[in-house]
Amino acid sequence: MAIDYRQRRKTLRESFAGRDILILSATNVPRNYAANVYPFHQDATFRYYTGLNIPDAAIILSADGRETLFVTKPDADDYIWTGAVDSPDVLAARSGIENVGDYETIERSFDARMAWFTPYDAHLRERLARWLGVSAQAVRDHDEPELCRAIANQRLVKSAEEIAEMESAIALTKEMLAMAQTEMVAGRLESDVLAALLRPAIAAERAQSFEPIVTTHGETLHSTSYRNVLKSQDILLVDCGAESELGYCADITRTFSIGAWDSAKREIYDVVLKMQLAGIAKAGEKGASQYDVHMAACRVLTENLQALGLMKGDVEESLRAGAHALFMPHGIGHALGLDAHDMENFGDVVGYENGARRSTQFGLNALRFARQLKPGYVVTVEPGCYFIPALIEKWRSEHHLEQFICYEKVAKYNDMRGIRIEDDVVITDDGCRVLGPGIEK
Amino acid sequence: MAIDYRQRRKTLRESFAGRDILILSATNVPRNYAANVYPFHQDATFRYYTGLNIPDAAIILSADGRETLFVTKPDADDYIWTGAVDSPDVLAARSGIENVGDYETIERSFDARMAWFTPYDAHLRERLARWLGVSAQAVRDHDEPELCRAIANQRLVKSAEEIAEMESAIALTKEMLAMAQTEMVAGRLESDVLAALLRPAIAAERAQSFEPIVTTHGETLHSTSYRNVLKSQDILLVDCGAESELGYCADITRTFSIGAWDSAKREIYDVVLKMQLAGIAKAGEKGASQYDVHMAACRVLTENLQALGLMKGDVEESLRAGAHALFMPHGIGHALGLDAHDMENFGDVVGYENGARRSTQFGLNALRFARQLKPGYVVTVEPGCYFIPALIEKWRSEHHLEQFICYEKVAKYNDMRGIRIEDDVVITDDGCRVLGPGIEK
Repeated sequence: MAIDYRQRRKTLRESFAGRDILILSATNVPRNYAANVYPFHQDATFRYYTGLNIPDAAIILSADGRETLFVTKPDADDYIWTGAVDSPDVLAARSGIENVGDYETIERSFDARMAWFTPYDAHLRERLARWLGVSAQAVRDHDEPELCRAIANQRLVKSAEEIAEMESAIALTKEMLAMAQTEMVAGRLESDVLAALLRPAIAAERAQSFEPIVTTHGETLHSTSYRNVLKSQDILLVDCGAESELGYCADITRTFSIGAWDSAKREIYDVVLKMQLAGIAKAGEKGASQYDVHMAACRVLTENLQALGLMKGDVEESLRAGAHALFMPHGIGHALGLDAHDMENFGDVVGYENGARRSTQFGLNALRFARQLKPGYVVTVEPGCYFIPALIEKWRSEHHLEQFICYEKVAKYNDMRGIRIEDDVVITDDGCRVLGPGIEK
Repeated sequence: MAIDYRQRRKTLRESFAGRDILILSATNVPRNYAANVYPFHQDATFRYYTGLNIPDAAIILSADGRETLFVTKPDADDYIWTGAVDSPDVLAARSGIENVGDYETIERSFDARMAWFTPYDAHLRERLARWLGVSAQAVRDHDEPELCRAIANQRLVKSAEEIAEMESAIALTKEMLAMAQTEMVAGRLESDVLAALLRPAIAAERAQSFEPIVTTHGETLHSTSYRNVLKSQDILLVDCGAESELGYCADITRTFSIGAWDSAKREIYDVVLKMQLAGIAKAGEKGASQYDVHMAACRVLTENLQALGLMKGDVEESLRAGAHALFMPHGIGHALGLDAHDMENFGDVVGYENGARRSTQFGLNALRFARQLKPGYVVTVEPGCYFIPALIEKWRSEHHLEQFICYEKVAKYNDMRGIRIEDDVVITDDGCRVLGPGIEK
C-alpha cells in the first residue's frame, strides 16, 4: 500500500494548470544557536507531494509537466557529524521525480509567473525574499488563494493508505493513554502522567502531533504546564496524539477521574459524551457541514445545561445568541491529516468554502473548520464543557446574555474546571466512522 | 541565593557605556502553523539580564541609566486559552525594572545609535527589519562585536548561584543516566533507552539542553536517530543534559557497554578516560587555555594510540600535523551556561579572544572555544576516540599523514565505532572542579 507521490503531483498540476508551482521543504530551526535546533519537522505539503523527510529542499512542478527536486549538497564533513545521507539521485528516485537541481541556486529556475505560498517559518521567508529580490514584508503579504485551495481540496480527501496511517497513529496514542493511566494516582504530578504518556511514543521514535495537554485545569484550553499535584476526585484532561511513521496525526482527548468520579463532575462528563455522540451522528448525515456538527453539539449542551438548571430560555434563541459559548468557547473540531490542524498555515481558505467567512461571534470565531463534509475528510469531534472563572465573572458582571444563563447556579460550579472528549472521524460514502482501535470513553 | 538581575544590567551598562542597548526575548516558533509551536525556549541573554521566561518582550537599557521592559499586552481572550498571565507591572517588579512599555510599539523608543545583536531566530530578524525600516539582509549582516564581547565577558564568569543551578541540572542528569541504564539490555532499542532517559526530566518539567545522543554508533558525532537494536558487547554512547529551573545547562557524556566489556573496546575506553583526566588536570593549571586543554588530551591520545600500534612517528610533529584528528575530529569542549554552547549565537567573538582566529586545520577547526580559562568559567571536557569508516577510507586512499598513522592496524578497528566521556568543569582560583554529584565513569 505505497503512496503514489507522482500521481499526487499530477493531480495538483492538473487542478492548477498553466503556472509553475514551487513547494519548499522545512528547514532546521535554531533553538538558541545554529547548532542547537528543534527536532526537525517537515512541511506537510512538501511531505505530501514527495514523501521526503529532509530539510532544505524544494520541488518545482513546471507547467509543461517537468518536475525537479532541488536538494542541498552535503558538506564534505557532514558525514562525520550526521552520518551518511541519501544522495540526490536516491531521493529523487524515491519520490519519483526525474530531475535534480541544486537548492543553493534554485532561484535561477524561478519563473516570473511561478506560484508559491508564504511559509509559516520566517527562516524560509527570509530565503524567499533573497531569492525573489523582494522585501520580507512582500513575502509575508503574498497571497495565492487558488494554489492553497487546489492543495486543500486534494489533501482534505484521505485515501485508504492515509486512513491506515492515521489509524496506526491512533493505535499508538491508545498505548500512550494506557501508560498514562498507570500514573493517575493521587499525589503524583501532572508531569508524572506526561512522562508516562510520552514513553511509548519516544520508544517508537514517533513525534507528537502537538504538545500534549495533561491538566487538572481543563478549563485552560491550551494549558502546557504540568506542575499540579493530582488530588482524589480531580478530573484530569489529556489531549494528545502521536504521529504515524509518515507523519499523519492522531488527536484524541479523554478526561479521567482520579479515583472515583464525583457525581456532579460525572453529570457534566455525561453531557459532554452526549454532545460528542450527537456531533458524530451529525457528521454522518449526508450533506452536513462541520458547522452543523458544531451546532448539533451546542444544542445538546444547551438542552442538558437547561435540564441541570445552569441555562434557561428558548433553546433556538439561546443557540443563535451563542450563550453556550460560555461553557464551550472553542470550535467542535478541525480537519486532521499531516497537520494536527490540517493546513491551518494556509488560513481560512481551507476551513471555509469559497465565499464563506468565519463568524465573529464569541465561540464560533474559534471554529477553525466549517466546510461541508465530504467522503474522505477526516475531522476531529471534540466537544467540551468548561467553567472558566474569569470568563464567567466577566459575563456575569456585564449581565451578558443573562436571559439564557443562570449565573447563581453557575457560581456553584466554580471549581468544576473542564471536560473534553475527542475522537477522529472519517466521512464515508454512507456516513462516518470513528478511526482507530476504539479507546474507552 | 537570589540572582541580582539589576546588578547584572548595571555591570553591562558600565562595561558598554554611552549607547542604549536593546535585548529581545525569544518568540514562539511555529512548528507547522501559528497555533502549533515548538516548546518555548527563552533567549539566554534576555533571561540572563531579566530572569523572565516570557515570549515577545524586550528591554532597553538606556545610556542615561533608565531601564524599560517592553511586554506584549495579553489579548482579551488569552486567559481562556493559556490561563492567567502575570501583568506587566508584576514582570517588571520581578526583574527590578522601573519602567514598562508596549512591545507592539517598541520601535518608537529606538535611538539611532542603539546597540543590538542579530537574533538567531529569523522571526525576530523579520520584526527588527520592520521596526528599523531596513532589509532582512541588513539585519543579518549587522555586526556589534563590542556589545557581544561585553556580554560574553560577563556571562562567561559564573557566580556561586549559577554554579549551584548547574549542579542541580547535573544532579538531574545523573538521575536520567541511572534510569537509562535500566534499559541497557541486549534486544532493546536505543529509543527505549532514550524514553527511560527522558522520563525523570519530563516528570520534573525540565527541558533538555539539547537533543540527547543515545547511540551504538558514537562515531556519528551528532546522531539523533535511535532505531538500532542493542546487541551484547555493543558500546552505547549517551550525551545529554537537563536544564536547571532557571535554564542553566548540564552536558554529560558516558559510554556504556551492553553486558561485559569487549577487551579491545575497553582499551580504547581507558585511553579516552586518560585523555579526560589529562584535560581536566590541564584546565586546573594557572593560565591554561581551552586550546591547551585540547592539545593535552590530543597528546595523550597520540601517545596511547602509538602504544596500541595505531599511530607512529614523532609525537610533537604528529600533534602539529593534527594526525590525531582522524580519531578525534572535534574540539575538547565548549563554554557552558544558559546555552549548551554558551553564547555560540554570537560567533567566535566568544570562543576566541580579541585577535585570535579559529584554526583551519581539520579537528582544530571544530574547537568552538579556545580562550584562556579564568576563575568562574565553566567548560566541558569531552574527549573521544572514534573510528569513522568513511573518514579513515578517505585519509587512507589519499595517503594522508601516513607517516603518523598505521592504516593497516586501524583497519582492524573498523567496527570499533565511538567512545566519549564528558564532564562539566568550573575554573576556580586555585585549579578547577568537576561539577555535580559525581557520575561513575
